[in-house]
Amino acid sequence: MKAVGIVVEYNPFHNGHSYHLQQAKARSGADIAIAVMSGPFLQRGEPALISRWRRTKMALEGGVDLVVELPYAFAAQKAETFAAGAVSILDALHVDALCFGSESGDITQFTAILAHRRANQAQYEAHVRSLVRTGISYPKAQAQALQAIAKDTTLDVSQPNNILGLHYLQALQSQGSQAAPLTVRRLAAGYHDQTFATDTIASATSIRKQLANGDISAIGNVVPASTLHHLHEYYHTYGTFHDWERYFPLLKYKLLTMTAAQLASIYEAEEGLEHRVLDCIRGAVSFTDLMEQLKTKRYTWTRLQRLCVHILTHTTKEQLKDVQSSPYIRLLGMSRQGQSYLSMHKKKLKLPLVTHAKAYRHPLFELDHKASAVYYSILPEPLRSLMLKQDFVQHPLRYDETPKAYS
Amino acid sequence: MKAVGIVVEYNPFHNGHSYHLQQAKARSGADIAIAVMSGPFLQRGEPALISRWRRTKMALEGGVDLVVELPYAFAAQKAETFAAGAVSILDALHVDALCFGSESGDITQFTAILAHRRANQAQYEAHVRSLVRTGISYPKAQAQALQAIAKDTTLDVSQPNNILGLHYLQALQSQGSQAAPLTVRRLAAGYHDQTFATDTIASATSIRKQLANGDISAIGNVVPASTLHHLHEYYHTYGTFHDWERYFPLLKYKLLTMTAAQLASIYEAEEGLEHRVLDCIRGAVSFTDLMEQLKTKRYTWTRLQRLCVHILTHTTKEQLKDVQSSPYIRLLGMSRQGQSYLSMHKKKLKLPLVTHAKAYRHPLFELDHKASAVYYSILPEPLRSLMLKQDFVQHPLRYDETPKAYS
Repeated sequence: MKAVGIVVEYNPFHNGHSYHLQQAKARSGADIAIAVMSGPFLQRGEPALISRWRRTKMALEGGVDLVVELPYAFAAQKAETFAAGAVSILDALHVDALCFGSESGDITQFTAILAHRRANQAQYEAHVRSLVRTGISYPKAQAQALQAIAKDTTLDVSQPNNILGLHYLQALQSQGSQAAPLTVRRLAAGYHDQTFATDTIASATSIRKQLANGDISAIGNVVPASTLHHLHEYYHTYGTFHDWERYFPLLKYKLLTMTAAQLASIYEAEEGLEHRVLDCIRGAVSFTDLMEQLKTKRYTWTRLQRLCVHILTHTTKEQLKDVQSSPYIRLLGMSRQGQSYLSMHKKKLKLPLVTHAKAYRHPLFELDHKASAVYYSILPEPLRSLMLKQDFVQHPLRYDETPKAYS
Repeated sequence: MKAVGIVVEYNPFHNGHSYHLQQAKARSGADIAIAVMSGPFLQRGEPALISRWRRTKMALEGGVDLVVELPYAFAAQKAETFAAGAVSILDALHVDALCFGSESGDITQFTAILAHRRANQAQYEAHVRSLVRTGISYPKAQAQALQAIAKDTTLDVSQPNNILGLHYLQALQSQGSQAAPLTVRRLAAGYHDQTFATDTIASATSIRKQLANGDISAIGNVVPASTLHHLHEYYHTYGTFHDWERYFPLLKYKLLTMTAAQLASIYEAEEGLEHRVLDCIRGAVSFTDLMEQLKTKRYTWTRLQRLCVHILTHTTKEQLKDVQSSPYIRLLGMSRQGQSYLSMHKKKLKLPLVTHAKAYRHPLFELDHKASAVYYSILPEPLRSLMLKQDFVQHPLRYDETPKAYS
């Protein structure tokens, strides 16, 4: 039984994701697809629209066979750590291939540019350092330095999914994984597009923009029926999607009860950023307002959002010191095929498989629970308490394609 | 110019307070009354219904000449520390008398029982210790031990205002204050009464109960017109009064992002209480629900509420270590008479007079700001930001009785 791994957020699952999933299976010749999916907080430093359980259902109904969680320690992180965490989990599950979406779509471009960098490592690193000193952000410096040493390659390293792809390849190499890297070119929609690209394909960003306007039905053409159903149900049950503005009152409360020294202990609060944040927060009337006050050339919006996530969850530098690979695999859901795959491999998995949250303890897993507790903080009681409980008692979802039901 | 000091919360100012104020002036023969009033959080571990500024207006319009703030470090505290803080401020302002309300109304009963205790100090303390070991609360043990050594006195030391009175006397003595202690018997209403005692006198507890039902006009007979006006205006402007249930989502968020070790560093988190709180919080759906789960014979409701206030404001044992007297006097408001009194005494005040929050710094004053910031956390933006700013820029209120206006 062959497996292909993919790294996803599904925020929410849309037609572009569906296409990627089909392509990943087809090109790898895999029998099953394993998705490592971020928990409540995402790589861009945002809360997921809806709970991990609902997104797991979207994934299973969209054709994923195994959904496992990317722990908080890797999910709300810069591309390098994000990729390293995801690869460590997929590798532990013995996937035969890892298939990522990119703007390029040509895997040889990725291997070529990585070879270039390896051959010019010292020069590359010196260049990054000198670019950072000019005041630009670290990711931008990396991209420019990379472009400089690999003039003859055609990969556009200013594109976010190309960058992420490079980190996947690098992680596969450095972790000695046997999984073959594959890439699928993303359809039409650009990662940051605010508007729909075609009739049926839109970026998650543009979809979330529609949802923020409160119009679920407006995305009917660009997501599967299943996504529409789960979004509707979640909104109906909880009265809200999760977005940063809903958390802003908590973030402000949190910051106003912290000292600069406490804030400096938070992960990503580097280079005096704590004073900047504390100076801005008193007068900030919304999350957007705060971000606009904080933003500089040096700090990307994404970086600042992630810092805010870590403040909200009180995640310290100490807690995320040296995280490089996941210590566990948290199983969220599986199809029948996925279940068979697990049965075949369960003796030789490289990491413990967590199927019952109550039965497993690890400092990074505690972080996942804390992130969950924060995530549900905006829900009214008793829903808030119920969701907190669910995360501890919920068994992995088991999905039957026929007759489309959970057991 | 003679001054009488009173210690108040005015939550809200009612006819009983008005009576006490008149009696205090009359019995002491004072020209002016100085009220030391708690800031945003009160002795029973509750948020004040409305802001310090609105309560200051109630006080000034009710006949108080100077309103100064009892800092957070003393306001949300056990009777002993509360009294010590209040007395230190009144003494620094050179009041000639301190007049408190009590169930007794006879000052000789207070002096007698204190003399008894002093004469039997060792016996008293041993008795308190042995009573605490039986599992009852510390205040209850103190009351029982006091009653035991002073069988022939008639003061009922199980009554909360009598207890507080004893602490005032003790603080006056231990701080070597020249202020004469006076007491006025409280009219009809018992401190904890849930219902109105007479047509025009009701306890603040029963008044708050009516307000919690959303019925401001129902208290029209038991409060001055001025109180009614300010309550109406506050509610109209901010959409809410401040009560614990409104803070519960924040408290729960706060607790769910704390470790047991962090919680143990919070003031009043003694004797493993931190584990009890963390065990209860996940499933608690309201503040009342949490309190009911936490309550035991050992911990009074009030004590547990105060702990929750300190958690909410993240006030640590370290921060409140050895607080015994206030390091400053924060002026909130004054009548013309009050202003004259201050002019006459300003050279010899025993503590710095803070009239501009921006211009003064002290660790305990930082606590006041933090408590304020937390207090306003439940307001919608931009009101929340505006109130935060007001605390820094607001000048003391100057009240003219004729033509009843602020300048």
